[in-house]
Amino acid sequence: MTADVMARLADLGVELPKVTPPVAAYVPALRSGDIVYVSGQLPMVDGALLATGLVGSDVSAEDAKALARRCALNALAAVSTVADLADVEQVIKVVGFVASAPGFTGQPGVINGASEFLGEVFGEAGRHARSAVGVAALPLGAPVEVEFMFRVRG
Amino acid sequence: MTADVMARLADLGVELPKVTPPVAAYVPALRSGDIVYVSGQLPMVDGALLATGLVGSDVSAEDAKALARRCALNALAAVSTVADLADVEQVIKVVGFVASAPGFTGQPGVINGASEFLGEVFGEAGRHARSAVGVAALPLGAPVEVEFMFRVRG
Amino acid sequence: MTADVMARLADLGVELPKVTPPVAAYVPALRSGDIVYVSGQLPMVDGALLATGLVGSDVSAEDAKALARRCALNALAAVSTVADLADVEQVIKVVGFVASAPGFTGQPGVINGASEFLGEVFGEAGRHARSAVGVAALPLGAPVEVEFMFRVRG
Repeated sequence: MTADVMARLADLGVELPKVTPPVAAYVPALRSGDIVYVSGQLPMVDGALLATGLVGSDVSAEDAKALARRCALNALAAVSTVADLADVEQVIKVVGFVASAPGFTGQPGVINGASEFLGEVFGEAGRHARSAVGVAALPLGAPVEVEFMFRVRG
Repeated sequence: MTADVMARLADLGVELPKVTPPVAAYVPALRSGDIVYVSGQLPMVDGALLATGLVGSDVSAEDAKALARRCALNALAAVSTVADLADVEQVIKVVGFVASAPGFTGQPGVINGASEFLGEVFGEAGRHARSAVGVAALPLGAPVEVEFMFRVRG
Repeated sequence: MTADVMARLADLGVELPKVTPPVAAYVPALRSGDIVYVSGQLPMVDGALLATGLVGSDVSAEDAKALARRCALNALAAVSTVADLADVEQVIKVVGFVASAPGFTGQPGVINGASEFLGEVFGEAGRHARSAVGVAALPLGAPVEVEFMFRVRG
């Protein structure tokens, strides 16, 4: 079933990235019982942000949606540090933070980038509870940050 | 006991609304074991926001408190999609996001609209942990968004 | 082991504060099974904020880091209202909200004040999943608010 998730990622044309180690006293993901809590993920590739700035002015909603998708891919890499991706039973919850220019209210469309990706990878098990909010600023100037909860098998 | 919750809502002069289906790849509420995670709720009635704008300029704190109450009512409707309201044992946690004009710092008073409503409906079982923060913008221009966790019986 | 946590706090030159009762229909911390959910903590001492304003303009990142540390200390006091600190098995998750001046993107460094303190007190068990975001405003004008999840023994 890990094979299945990996195959699914390959179908989607994406590769599981290396995990960027957090720059502080915390971990990319923590498992407690059957729940994996994933730290807020930034749209990093090889340790560098794909973009910076506010969505709605510096970054378009469409570009930001692609960034949110990258956050979700990075989350899978984070999960893989504490559990086998084959053991993911359910995506439980997603909280999406969008660094928003004044008046930008399209946060749900942006975070759909993460939600839809999880649906593509996990199917029904990818459906989750979710909040999406617009914030003033994010670490390193990231346009999007997304955190995740997964349930994994025993 | 569902009867009790419904009767309590009737006492409070409110009716359980229909659930507005999310506009994305997520669900209004997800149950995992004995926990129900409710997606961020907006102050919607019949699919339309009751108000838009920033609290502290466009929307008064008092009006925003009523909007937060509506978010909590909508949350009960969301819970009812995955569990019987009679089976709610405890409200566990509330996170309230208030779209805040510069300098507005009355977020706790606004989110009390949700917290007090849960107290009215569930009594002691309605007491919960909570965070309230002021954000730059919310989906569709909503002044308030509130997410919830409930514990339900077996 | 409570003795140990208390001794560790003494080593660190800090004392467990009294809990400021929330000003609303919620509780400082709620225990559900083996999880303790701590409400968003402000950098309060004896019921008064240590500072107010936005980080990056009114408050320096370094001062804000000290405020985040205070939030974590206050969180331990909150935990002690529902569980023995000796029974803390693991810090699970931290979410840090930083009231951020436009362009301030150093939220992780600020919230390290909380994360590092938890590492000092709990060692390996203090490592946690984390999100840090920059928000428009926080209750009472606080520069920092931090919420926490802990796992405790049976």
